[in-house]
Amino acid sequence: MSDPVILSTKGRDTYQYPLLIQKLLANIAQHSSQEIVSAGRRFTYTEFVERIHRLASLLTGCGIQPGDTVAVMDWDSHRYLESYFAVPMIGAVLQTVNIRLLPEVIEFTVRQAQAKVILYHSDFTPIIDAMRKKLPDLKHLILLSDASDPGTYEELLTQASPDFIFSDFDENAIATTFHTTGTTGEPKQVFFSHRQIVLHSLAAGVTFANNPSGQSFRRSDVYMPMTPMFHVHAWGLPYIATMLGVKQVYPGRYHPETILSLKSTEGVTFSHGVPTLLRMVIDAAKPLGINLTPWAVVVGGSAMSESLADEAANVGITAVAGYGMSETGPILTVARSLAHDPTSVRTRAGLAIPLVETRIEPPGRGELLVRAPWLTEGYGTQAASDDLWAGGWLHTQDIAEQDVDGAIRIVDRVKDVIKTGGEWVSSIEIESLLGTHPCVAEAAVIGIPSEKWGERPLAIVVAQKGRPAPSEKDLKAYMADHAKAGRIVHYGQPDRYIFRDALPRTSVGKVDKKLLRQSLADLHPSPFDVRTVDFD
Amino acid sequence: MSDPVILSTKGRDTYQYPLLIQKLLANIAQHSSQEIVSAGRRFTYTEFVERIHRLASLLTGCGIQPGDTVAVMDWDSHRYLESYFAVPMIGAVLQTVNIRLLPEVIEFTVRQAQAKVILYHSDFTPIIDAMRKKLPDLKHLILLSDASDPGTYEELLTQASPDFIFSDFDENAIATTFHTTGTTGEPKQVFFSHRQIVLHSLAAGVTFANNPSGQSFRRSDVYMPMTPMFHVHAWGLPYIATMLGVKQVYPGRYHPETILSLKSTEGVTFSHGVPTLLRMVIDAAKPLGINLTPWAVVVGGSAMSESLADEAANVGITAVAGYGMSETGPILTVARSLAHDPTSVRTRAGLAIPLVETRIEPPGRGELLVRAPWLTEGYGTQAASDDLWAGGWLHTQDIAEQDVDGAIRIVDRVKDVIKTGGEWVSSIEIESLLGTHPCVAEAAVIGIPSEKWGERPLAIVVAQKGRPAPSEKDLKAYMADHAKAGRIVHYGQPDRYIFRDALPRTSVGKVDKKLLRQSLADLHPSPFDVRTVDFD
Repeated sequence: MSDPVILSTKGRDTYQYPLLIQKLLANIAQHSSQEIVSAGRRFTYTEFVERIHRLASLLTGCGIQPGDTVAVMDWDSHRYLESYFAVPMIGAVLQTVNIRLLPEVIEFTVRQAQAKVILYHSDFTPIIDAMRKKLPDLKHLILLSDASDPGTYEELLTQASPDFIFSDFDENAIATTFHTTGTTGEPKQVFFSHRQIVLHSLAAGVTFANNPSGQSFRRSDVYMPMTPMFHVHAWGLPYIATMLGVKQVYPGRYHPETILSLKSTEGVTFSHGVPTLLRMVIDAAKPLGINLTPWAVVVGGSAMSESLADEAANVGITAVAGYGMSETGPILTVARSLAHDPTSVRTRAGLAIPLVETRIEPPGRGELLVRAPWLTEGYGTQAASDDLWAGGWLHTQDIAEQDVDGAIRIVDRVKDVIKTGGEWVSSIEIESLLGTHPCVAEAAVIGIPSEKWGERPLAIVVAQKGRPAPSEKDLKAYMADHAKAGRIVHYGQPDRYIFRDALPRTSVGKVDKKLLRQSLADLHPSPFDVRTVDFD
Repeated sequence: MSDPVILSTKGRDTYQYPLLIQKLLANIAQHSSQEIVSAGRRFTYTEFVERIHRLASLLTGCGIQPGDTVAVMDWDSHRYLESYFAVPMIGAVLQTVNIRLLPEVIEFTVRQAQAKVILYHSDFTPIIDAMRKKLPDLKHLILLSDASDPGTYEELLTQASPDFIFSDFDENAIATTFHTTGTTGEPKQVFFSHRQIVLHSLAAGVTFANNPSGQSFRRSDVYMPMTPMFHVHAWGLPYIATMLGVKQVYPGRYHPETILSLKSTEGVTFSHGVPTLLRMVIDAAKPLGINLTPWAVVVGGSAMSESLADEAANVGITAVAGYGMSETGPILTVARSLAHDPTSVRTRAGLAIPLVETRIEPPGRGELLVRAPWLTEGYGTQAASDDLWAGGWLHTQDIAEQDVDGAIRIVDRVKDVIKTGGEWVSSIEIESLLGTHPCVAEAAVIGIPSEKWGERPLAIVVAQKGRPAPSEKDLKAYMADHAKAGRIVHYGQPDRYIFRDALPRTSVGKVDKKLLRQSLADLHPSPFDVRTVDFD
């Protein structure tokens, strides 16, 4: 078999167009009459683009060269958005530091990324002071503050030249890096190139704009992230919003009151976040008796329960699931539903977006394997990357099923699925069913060892405030009814219930099952002792 | 300056995702419950994808190898759409033959593209018979017909295997080729790679989905091309429609009655075409007194006059301009307007779509230069390509201006602009103004030589049927009024008017000013004789 003919412009003056982040800005200052709202200030797109040029001058003036790393430690702000563009546009690598990690872990991530400059909010001064001496690559610290105090970001930007000229370079250059916040092991460093971010912006942009009205994200929307900007580029939405020139609102540190206030004063219509954050917003809105329509919120990071989606609908929020991981840049699938569809259609992971190839292995119910042009090519270490990409497919470590319409349903994490009597039971399905009990606020289900069955499900339950506390007996009866009705397999009913005031969470708001297992292991008798299991 | 860090997966198993046309099909058979309607038949996306596999088996069975050319001569059909995918997906080059050219020119284009297989509609049997012996590379002819007669496309497809396995290859491989149908010189061969078509699909797809409702193209639309599929991949829309899994309707050979009938029976909501075709559809719809809303039609190829857009609106069509060329793959800009905007906002070339960089040289009113990731890298010959890409920007040969909102207005073709008294006057502006006269159906304005002024405008006018015939005196008075009102510069008023029953057009429906000039040169006295010009 011969090879396809490759376009060749050898000796010609043809321009070879690289997919660089700066290309997303083409014409936008002229096209958009919208604003970027942050920290009580408003910027036109023309001002925003000028500030990107100034920041590029400032960073290169600090000695930052292509390939160097610039770290940012901030809440969601226009300054963070400026760094999303200016840092990669000079060929440098933007490190979005997960500021919710423990100080020594933050130090580990900044050291591993070899950051030469850190832009940091004053809230993180104690962490900076504690670690700065232990960062051998660090050359400059720039304080992010609203005031134009000497030596701080705003003052330095004013002094910097607005005439920086950006050059083209290889589209495969690394644009961003950050650390995954898995619930197992130490954080792993992932990387994304310019090409990957541009392609993600286009494919996810096409998808959101094509979603049915009320679940869509289009040029006429007002955008506000509720996923921290350190977390996978706020799922890539700030890049899409900027490419389209939409009005953007950055809420700083997340307080439900601030979020609701900005939603109303700025007319926010599109956001995204983890279920925990959506829950906080609902809880803050409910007592006010307000209707938040129109507000589409894409929910990811963890599975969204149907009850949460219904509660969101009660306050006027259309919550639609999306699915992806830190390693996948992140968006792989997005749900959508029509007016007559049940809530469950919107809470599935959804349909693969353009250019995403999926495989379930083994077929039926198995691990979801994916390919797309924007997946991290690996972690810092070779061995972990080989596992991630075994066989040339990225291994999500999520167990999935596919519905007849092609939509993906995530059944469980590979490590959370409960292997009992030779069958795989989804911890998420049990948690979701328990969540429908009126006295249950939330539940986590984990597998505990069983001599007879291999594993058996155990539920950790948080009671709903203002309701009678549920008992183990109540919940067993409730689940037995569901099993009789065929909504859960018989052997999927938890054998034991443990009640807690809250569930431990990771830095990005997911239930931390690793911590949960540790805390249970300290109990006497431990549920991990097989002798305590008495299911027949 | 050091280099940016490039992602490297040396020795790793990471999948390198190439931007190939087959990737636009990922999951679509599962995701879409829509149909492809053509020639009285209806295909599900599952059937469509299966037929692509069969066509790939058929072509490779004919000995087609990567890099070989497969030519198609057909009206708009599902079979054409199948070739859009199957041919490039096996690594071969799809030649979309402009079947409106003269037979000897068609022969020239097919020979130059070195087609080994031609898929042809029976309407083109005479041309095939006349040229087949003179095509040294030709190995197979496949007749496209609705009947499953032995040896024809449908029968061969039934016999071919549905299990063809597509492989990945370099995204810069040539996917398509065709010849530009410029109004000067012989047709020039242009080329587009897989990467270019995928990026065009994403960027144009984002743009159309984000256009205001009523001017948009989204998953819920019903698509029907009114730009022939040989013409720059029907402006790339069939690729976008397929990527989104929308319902597609292929109208065969264009008859206004067929188009109106399909519009109504299939519920078409989005189309695109040249002004001439829109005019035909309006003329066919008007006597029927029907309202065609909702129907968004993107108009390109030539400038759309405001009067045409208004007439379209009168029959319920929202006509919105787009701009591009054969060389540009084609879409560069798309217009959009809000409810309160005047018609002129929708008839401008519009706003550059994502990833398109524009420059006007000289600034103000000058030639439009562009960069985008989907521009042809050249023509067959080196010298013409060097002109096209002089200085690393593609030269559109169009004179443009930019409005304050960033929208581009095409003022004229470089070769059509009238250089008079040291000023550049747009022939299109004069034509547009003449078109507003109630007795004028359409007008073409060309520059004729003047000893005193260099050039002077001459108008060729087609009278509006059913109206009193306009005289030269009427039109001079009409234009003088406009000049007094400041709607045209004084020296932009044509000196002479010539009346014709129709204007000559190119194979893609544009007014053929080259032919027009030729026919005028044959007049006695010739307007090209400077002695005939008497303007003071």
